[in-house]
Amino acid sequence: MKAQVLNQYDEKLTADSWVTLQDVPDPKIEKSTDVIVRIGGAGVCRTDLHIIEGVWKPHMDPDGHHLLPLIMGHENAGWVEEIGKEVEGLKVGDPVIVHPKISGGTCLACRRGHDMHGPGTFPGLDSNGGYAEYLSTSERNIVALPKTLAPKEVAPYADAGLTAYRAVKKATRHLLPGESVVVIGAGGLGHIAIQCLKAMCAADVIVVDKSDDSLKLAEKIGADKLVKADGNEVEALLALTGGLGSEAVIDFVGEKGMTAKGLAMTRSMGSYYVVGYGENIVVPTVDMVITEKNIIGNLVGTWAELVELMALADRGLVNLTTVDYSLADANKALQDLNAGRIHGRAVLIP
Amino acid sequence: MKAQVLNQYDEKLTADSWVTLQDVPDPKIEKSTDVIVRIGGAGVCRTDLHIIEGVWKPHMDPDGHHLLPLIMGHENAGWVEEIGKEVEGLKVGDPVIVHPKISGGTCLACRRGHDMHGPGTFPGLDSNGGYAEYLSTSERNIVALPKTLAPKEVAPYADAGLTAYRAVKKATRHLLPGESVVVIGAGGLGHIAIQCLKAMCAADVIVVDKSDDSLKLAEKIGADKLVKADGNEVEALLALTGGLGSEAVIDFVGEKGMTAKGLAMTRSMGSYYVVGYGENIVVPTVDMVITEKNIIGNLVGTWAELVELMALADRGLVNLTTVDYSLADANKALQDLNAGRIHGRAVLIP
Amino acid sequence: MKAQVLNQYDEKLTADSWVTLQDVPDPKIEKSTDVIVRIGGAGVCRTDLHIIEGVWKPHMDPDGHHLLPLIMGHENAGWVEEIGKEVEGLKVGDPVIVHPKISGGTCLACRRGHDMHGPGTFPGLDSNGGYAEYLSTSERNIVALPKTLAPKEVAPYADAGLTAYRAVKKATRHLLPGESVVVIGAGGLGHIAIQCLKAMCAADVIVVDKSDDSLKLAEKIGADKLVKADGNEVEALLALTGGLGSEAVIDFVGEKGMTAKGLAMTRSMGSYYVVGYGENIVVPTVDMVITEKNIIGNLVGTWAELVELMALADRGLVNLTTVDYSLADANKALQDLNAGRIHGRAVLIP
Amino acid sequence: MKAQVLNQYDEKLTADSWVTLQDVPDPKIEKSTDVIVRIGGAGVCRTDLHIIEGVWKPHMDPDGHHLLPLIMGHENAGWVEEIGKEVEGLKVGDPVIVHPKISGGTCLACRRGHDMHGPGTFPGLDSNGGYAEYLSTSERNIVALPKTLAPKEVAPYADAGLTAYRAVKKATRHLLPGESVVVIGAGGLGHIAIQCLKAMCAADVIVVDKSDDSLKLAEKIGADKLVKADGNEVEALLALTGGLGSEAVIDFVGEKGMTAKGLAMTRSMGSYYVVGYGENIVVPTVDMVITEKNIIGNLVGTWAELVELMALADRGLVNLTTVDYSLADANKALQDLNAGRIHGRAVLIP
Repeated sequence: MKAQVLNQYDEKLTADSWVTLQDVPDPKIEKSTDVIVRIGGAGVCRTDLHIIEGVWKPHMDPDGHHLLPLIMGHENAGWVEEIGKEVEGLKVGDPVIVHPKISGGTCLACRRGHDMHGPGTFPGLDSNGGYAEYLSTSERNIVALPKTLAPKEVAPYADAGLTAYRAVKKATRHLLPGESVVVIGAGGLGHIAIQCLKAMCAADVIVVDKSDDSLKLAEKIGADKLVKADGNEVEALLALTGGLGSEAVIDFVGEKGMTAKGLAMTRSMGSYYVVGYGENIVVPTVDMVITEKNIIGNLVGTWAELVELMALADRGLVNLTTVDYSLADANKALQDLNAGRIHGRAVLIP
Repeated sequence: MKAQVLNQYDEKLTADSWVTLQDVPDPKIEKSTDVIVRIGGAGVCRTDLHIIEGVWKPHMDPDGHHLLPLIMGHENAGWVEEIGKEVEGLKVGDPVIVHPKISGGTCLACRRGHDMHGPGTFPGLDSNGGYAEYLSTSERNIVALPKTLAPKEVAPYADAGLTAYRAVKKATRHLLPGESVVVIGAGGLGHIAIQCLKAMCAADVIVVDKSDDSLKLAEKIGADKLVKADGNEVEALLALTGGLGSEAVIDFVGEKGMTAKGLAMTRSMGSYYVVGYGENIVVPTVDMVITEKNIIGNLVGTWAELVELMALADRGLVNLTTVDYSLADANKALQDLNAGRIHGRAVLIP
Repeated sequence: MKAQVLNQYDEKLTADSWVTLQDVPDPKIEKSTDVIVRIGGAGVCRTDLHIIEGVWKPHMDPDGHHLLPLIMGHENAGWVEEIGKEVEGLKVGDPVIVHPKISGGTCLACRRGHDMHGPGTFPGLDSNGGYAEYLSTSERNIVALPKTLAPKEVAPYADAGLTAYRAVKKATRHLLPGESVVVIGAGGLGHIAIQCLKAMCAADVIVVDKSDDSLKLAEKIGADKLVKADGNEVEALLALTGGLGSEAVIDFVGEKGMTAKGLAMTRSMGSYYVVGYGENIVVPTVDMVITEKNIIGNLVGTWAELVELMALADRGLVNLTTVDYSLADANKALQDLNAGRIHGRAVLIP
Repeated sequence: MKAQVLNQYDEKLTADSWVTLQDVPDPKIEKSTDVIVRIGGAGVCRTDLHIIEGVWKPHMDPDGHHLLPLIMGHENAGWVEEIGKEVEGLKVGDPVIVHPKISGGTCLACRRGHDMHGPGTFPGLDSNGGYAEYLSTSERNIVALPKTLAPKEVAPYADAGLTAYRAVKKATRHLLPGESVVVIGAGGLGHIAIQCLKAMCAADVIVVDKSDDSLKLAEKIGADKLVKADGNEVEALLALTGGLGSEAVIDFVGEKGMTAKGLAMTRSMGSYYVVGYGENIVVPTVDMVITEKNIIGNLVGTWAELVELMALADRGLVNLTTVDYSLADANKALQDLNAGRIHGRAVLIP
């Protein structure tokens, strides 16, 4: 099959092209529960740029020979192409979205529903992903798509959307009418979060962003109040909340000083949800004690949560703006992403 | 002051008039935290008819001399008229809604926030209520109204609305996207519940009612699916839910066979919320075991929940249709209610 | 292999023998994740008597030809004898206990950890169980035993223990110091529940039983207070709880009028857990409303909960009294159970 | 009355005496719900040393003239001496323990049961406390003592014990059998926490401390496993937990590098509870994301939680080692505390 292969790192992201369109062997069914998916769309994610830079190398490829060559692409959707002999409930041709973590299903974490906390690979990061015509995955990773949803339109939900959804879900378990929730960063994940929040709770949704365009989009998709991140965003947020802050703050930025600001926006007894990453959180223990704030880490969601997110999409409660690129144009998509030229989410289509 | 007084029971509800407009002594501040409210509106509730019938007599007035004469009216809103000398944070003239249960505030139930489970009186039921010009209550029962809300427009939230809200809140703590919730009975409480559900979760809201008009109203205010209660409502509901039933069923009827139907509409591991009352629930223990269903009783909400409900109303997320009657026309309002001639909620205005 | 086979129902339980020791084909590995367990012990459960009586026939065997002949036995432990070719993390000879429900693992219920709410068979009830030398099960059903625990000593935990544990776990999620929990029936399940409660919460454990011997045993294993079920047990319980009842009531009887009594023992806002079954629960809706009680159905626990229960057993926090019978003496064990001659739990050993 | 008064700060804690025994006016009933308590015992807390040092000055006394002279003492128990005219349910002579935060009872935080998150004073810190013969407090702060408990023996529960209890309670809401919880620091709060954990859950309690004496005490009161804080405590803890860490870590130290170690001991999806304070928590956002850990701040508990803690003490499930000093010897008690000469908890007795 055709695939876009990453053969070497580029720490400064200065090369003209990073991936190479190559002929590679088709993936094969190996276990009785394997599934081969024909890719309908593969989301292009900022994490892919980080992989190219080698950010993940110390974690996953310390000697530089293990991971590369790698087919990236961890946000995949398409159609069932072939199934292992013990796969039930799926048939060739079914439209599907692929949960990004291949988990075993037998460890205690999996058995309690926390799929992504068991051992397992993450195709596109530590094994071959979806920048290709076909992808090998497992029955456990397949979520059947409702008829309303086309694979190429939903692929980015598989990771970006699912991560935003999970953080929102945690927050909506405690948010009540009359309370408020701050979304810091109305970009790819943030604009999904805003829509999920509006669908799932009655708290006031306050969006903080430095871009006027992003704030405009936020308002259009339902944000109740907007705060320009112009250096005085903490004061502005406190002014909107009687000086007390918000019961939940979901931070999709996590760098450039935003963690301290996010915590300052969080009300006593409230929760600060860490999704975006980059810098260190630094907080005095005495402040944690006096305020009883909570700092909550957030990973990608579970398989069941991907089902829930697809239910939201199916009902039109969340919508995603995607920009199509052909698989052959993967480098262009990555360059455009790196240059900030993509509004919405790029998807590679074989 | 003028008040409408119930001087005797009428078991068959056949009399032309039940309450009498009388001059009675004004309520007085007795404790340092007492508050006198000038009534702006007092909701007329089906429970008032039950009081007239003597339904509550065995519970609250076994010898027939204790309760009557009684000023009914437990859904009250108005303006602060006078405050006890240790009341803080309220001033004369403030528009307010009155939580119906006067609780002491020192028992363990109160201290955990479950106000209505401590000892205390319930004006309009076991002490004088709001079918009058003034009402005596306590600082603990006062919820200040946002500027958007006029007392006479919100009075019925004090009990009917608050009861619907509490049941909805319990359900939305577990309802997830892709799941569904059934509202049985789209009348006074039900139509508030539908709006609260749409605001507070993303589950599909399925409304069951025998009246086409009520179903039309339900659709208008956001119901996702409608089921006519024509005798085949269980089958119809199961057909809408893949044969499995809904994760939550909120029953505002609770009589005429509806409890068995409501339980049959409840999915395994789901919860059946009892709000309306009348008949016995009869369910085999073996069915409870095999299905792991939950049957959840629901009383009026807490003070904090009334604050939450006012936040919903303030944002326009719930709306109430009220029909004004002068206090002098209390009997007409009660007769109209008894005859099913009121669409929305009757409110007495002094 | 040798197995005890049920070839016909006996509605009155009057026959001298119910099962027949026969040579039957050994179970075989069919799917890649199948596991054959060599039985070390199979618990003899009251449900087995109900199967013999034909109680389950209307549910599982309406035409009388589908279920029988059946090898009963749904509480099984032993050693891994053979594994399918994709089973990981288990090897031949490992001591194991077997979760009773064979679930597929791919439905939404399974993926959220609620194994027993998905489709699947229940060996010993609707397919061949553990009254035999070998049992066919799935990798998903295997819980490895800690070294401290021998299969024949723990077999009854697989169903009886797991059911008691699950109800206790639900209750301990809300029980607080100073509150109390009632255990109705200190028999097989009840005496496990008492031990789990003492290990998992600080609430006062009050045991209600009609047998002095059972109450003595209850006290020995940690019950804080005892109530003789002599007809005045409700009054006695209320006297122990300031007239208010207990925050949780776990009913292992569920028949002969105990459900009404159990509900009467439940405090306002408290929960009545249904585990034992037999009669109908009958409760006025108005009582559910005024008291805000909850009625909670309880099935057998999840795989993860069996892991948790084994952790309790491993630490000596729960202990089980078992009585050994050889597989050849299965009829004697069943007759002894039916006659009330077993103190503790009978286990068949091949 | 006699009282020990702090008249000036001593930043280095080098003076021989810090407080002065003086005659001061008796506190008086001012509001109808005020209560005067005759002190039976006042706990001496490390926070008192911090007050003397002026640590709280920037927060509560920026101009140096507002707070001093101050009667310290925020852990108080005794007998009701006098009650305001609207106090119900208390009578003169009743033995009581005093919740440390005087809250108004009408704000939303109070009404939801979170007493200590509303506005209000904290006697002994920002108004006169219990190093005296009498203390002025409010009906809302009084918890009646069971007959088994003498005021001087329980006074330290009012703040130290209540803080430990609250953190433990949060942890026990999620801890399951087979899981483990780390208590860092087996001192005053820690040794209460260990006992509460053993009473309230079945998780393995692992205690980390640098003192062999403290570890011995920890073992005696129920700790399941001990880890010497000798610089390799993280490795030792990981070795005890299969390399994965514990589901809950409660840190009563919070300084000298312990926060990083505490987080390193916390398992993925686990919670790190901050109780002790001193240093900054510094944690990379990416680590919070990958592990989904939670960092949970903890303040003193609610009034209802003080009731719960007294229920534990009443049943002998927690015990406190106290050392009596006469009120006149307050300086000696403070000096002994500062010098590390107190084993258990010092209590001043008028």
